Amino acid sequence: MICNNLSINEQGHLCFAGIDTTLLAEKYGTPLYLMDENRIRERCRTYITAMKEAFGDKAAPLYASKAASFKQIYRIMKEEGMGIDVVSAGEIYTAVSIGFPLEHAYFHSNNKTDEDIDFAMEHGIGYFVVDNEEELKAIDRIAARRSIRQNILLRLTPGIDPHTYEEVATGKVDSKFGSAIETGQAKSITAFSLSLSNINLKGFHCHVGSQVFDSDVFLQSADIMLGFIKEMKDSLGLHTEILDLGGGYGVRYLDSDPMIDIAENIRTVGAHIHKKCADLGIALPTIHMEPGRSIVADAGLTLYTVGTIKKIPGYKNYVSIDGGMADNPRYALYKSSYTVLLANRATEDEETFTCSLVGRCCESGDIIQENITLPANTKRGDLVAVLTTGAYNYSMASNYNRLTRPPVVMLKDGTDFIAVKRESLADLCANDL
Amino acid sequence: MICNNLSINEQGHLCFAGIDTTLLAEKYGTPLYLMDENRIRERCRTYITAMKEAFGDKAAPLYASKAASFKQIYRIMKEEGMGIDVVSAGEIYTAVSIGFPLEHAYFHSNNKTDEDIDFAMEHGIGYFVVDNEEELKAIDRIAARRSIRQNILLRLTPGIDPHTYEEVATGKVDSKFGSAIETGQAKSITAFSLSLSNINLKGFHCHVGSQVFDSDVFLQSADIMLGFIKEMKDSLGLHTEILDLGGGYGVRYLDSDPMIDIAENIRTVGAHIHKKCADLGIALPTIHMEPGRSIVADAGLTLYTVGTIKKIPGYKNYVSIDGGMADNPRYALYKSSYTVLLANRATEDEETFTCSLVGRCCESGDIIQENITLPANTKRGDLVAVLTTGAYNYSMASNYNRLTRPPVVMLKDGTDFIAVKRESLADLCANDL
Repeated sequence: MICNNLSINEQGHLCFAGIDTTLLAEKYGTPLYLMDENRIRERCRTYITAMKEAFGDKAAPLYASKAASFKQIYRIMKEEGMGIDVVSAGEIYTAVSIGFPLEHAYFHSNNKTDEDIDFAMEHGIGYFVVDNEEELKAIDRIAARRSIRQNILLRLTPGIDPHTYEEVATGKVDSKFGSAIETGQAKSITAFSLSLSNINLKGFHCHVGSQVFDSDVFLQSADIMLGFIKEMKDSLGLHTEILDLGGGYGVRYLDSDPMIDIAENIRTVGAHIHKKCADLGIALPTIHMEPGRSIVADAGLTLYTVGTIKKIPGYKNYVSIDGGMADNPRYALYKSSYTVLLANRATEDEETFTCSLVGRCCESGDIIQENITLPANTKRGDLVAVLTTGAYNYSMASNYNRLTRPPVVMLKDGTDFIAVKRESLADLCANDL
Repeated sequence: MICNNLSINEQGHLCFAGIDTTLLAEKYGTPLYLMDENRIRERCRTYITAMKEAFGDKAAPLYASKAASFKQIYRIMKEEGMGIDVVSAGEIYTAVSIGFPLEHAYFHSNNKTDEDIDFAMEHGIGYFVVDNEEELKAIDRIAARRSIRQNILLRLTPGIDPHTYEEVATGKVDSKFGSAIETGQAKSITAFSLSLSNINLKGFHCHVGSQVFDSDVFLQSADIMLGFIKEMKDSLGLHTEILDLGGGYGVRYLDSDPMIDIAENIRTVGAHIHKKCADLGIALPTIHMEPGRSIVADAGLTLYTVGTIKKIPGYKNYVSIDGGMADNPRYALYKSSYTVLLANRATEDEETFTCSLVGRCCESGDIIQENITLPANTKRGDLVAVLTTGAYNYSMASNYNRLTRPPVVMLKDGTDFIAVKRESLADLCANDL
């Protein structure tokens, strides 16, 4: 099993967070998103503890909300003492609605509208992670109108190719995000920030990609960022309080993905940064990281019911489920890998057949995973589990084909409760006139 | 201009359906989906008239709802006398909620759940387009319980590669949809249908792909399907009443896309089918087609506001807008082409610069279009129009990054009115507990 919150009970049923998934499917119906709350909390604590040990007491992980954003997630983050990274008024609204202390929130995005900026200040956002000069001017202008001095970080692109897949690679010079160090634009926006009277420049941010499986990329980006901090100290007299390294560590979608020791990796980064700061003669800034996927991904699992088994002699086999790209568009978007098994017959000693697991949308590209193996006698009514769906599934879900979005059910200490209700047919038309 | 519902007025503003888009942006805000209702109706009439002329009075186009499904669309389809193709309880619910006569609805999908089947029968669905044997058994069983005899078509795969892009290619033998003629599975499911006492087999359906730019693919699939109909007549004594050829003609996303005369193409198909039926000695079935994209795509246009212009010397330029893959995931999914222009300065004689038009989502792959040209002085606050977004934009929209979905505003006879309201922040949390 790719994660230790998975097991198989005596009846051969898949259990998640200790609960028989067939009972959950019966209780809540399918498709169904399950989230293991204890796993989420455990991951938060791993990051918090490791970061404080490695970087000192002020260091903190910021949960990257876009991986999964709903009220219960922010309750967990609040209780665990996590900061959050938000990218829209919608995420801010959701966090605020459960009383998340917004001074611990960092507002990202390559394009914040004036309305977003105003909304975030209205709710006392801690920091803007400023992407570009036009945005900086807008923040300064709106802060002036509100008679405040707004804390910001500047998002920089250190110019590293993180060797992860294209869609999540964001730290290269050629990026829609941030200002490049290499081109001199980073220095220019830093100087400009210091000239603005309603801006309080607290530090810098970079993000070199998701699904990082070793510390190299963090070491490289830390080197470049600390070098830049040193340069800004020397040339502009700037004392940098915060360095946000973005990103988080990789999660396992397949058995063949490496198992990663997050705490050990953070220790390595910590030792490296301490030494680098000493070498450069600069004070250690407060270090942030922004894990999203690695907090929630393997805390999630999706259950589907099999509708159709189609065997096309000489071609291939298809197993259709009652969800698809509407609730999980990641294969359609990125050809993402997933581990799939039958939840109601999870024992692995049966005869198997190879098939494509496809969704119910009226579109050929609606595929969850190609070339999986399921028991040879898989049939209508069987229960399929797709693992590691806690990140970028609920948050990316659509109503394509006018399908209703599944509920999110939390599992905690052997109990289960609804965090997000299943959409109703009436919900689909709620805004139709 | 790629479609005749576009023009530029004296102030250099882009007009759509005769209305100045800058005034619509001001009135409704951005991002904003606009739909030209007259264009939709015109397209319906083109198909209806051409099909009746080519195939006789009972022939009818069925609007493929998945292209764009909301109440106002079904009002238009009802008033125009179109049939509809639906793929979920959600689409049925929406159609029924405005009183669409469901006897003219055809229920597609490779995987209909028992609940879907029951729901559709409850509302008096005209036809199921049956994908496979398991589904057929379920329909027979539920029809028996309801003491009805259910009209169905069988979905067959004629084995044609339509040479359109992979994701929309659905008529090949290797498909998640339907039963293949080549493998004998089509004949087998036909015979099985005839043995079921609560099933009334009315005919056959195939779908060989979207974005078809000539009649070849329809001629080829018609040949194969009519040959099969003849074979079923001879071997099983089956009289086939309906032949549904699926699909529809291509629309223009770029100036370089061919202009297609739908009526002329349908005439060609009509002449071909008449001759083929005579040659085979079979009666002409009632012919259906299922245009979706070609009914609504160029009746749609999306307006965005520019947030950021980023010029990275030696690399490339980015223009960020206040929407993106959340409201239009087609570039992220398929690398789809779009025509883009500045709506508030649509004159084409200015100095231009080449850029990527990117969305506001926190993801590198959030791109609307690469390598477009915009005026060199494009700036924050400018209005961008992305053309031909009436199909598979609103219907595929998500709340990724917790962004609210834009409203759909209809334009009709020089007036504008809301068909789907803009989502509110509260809507995002409506199902959160």
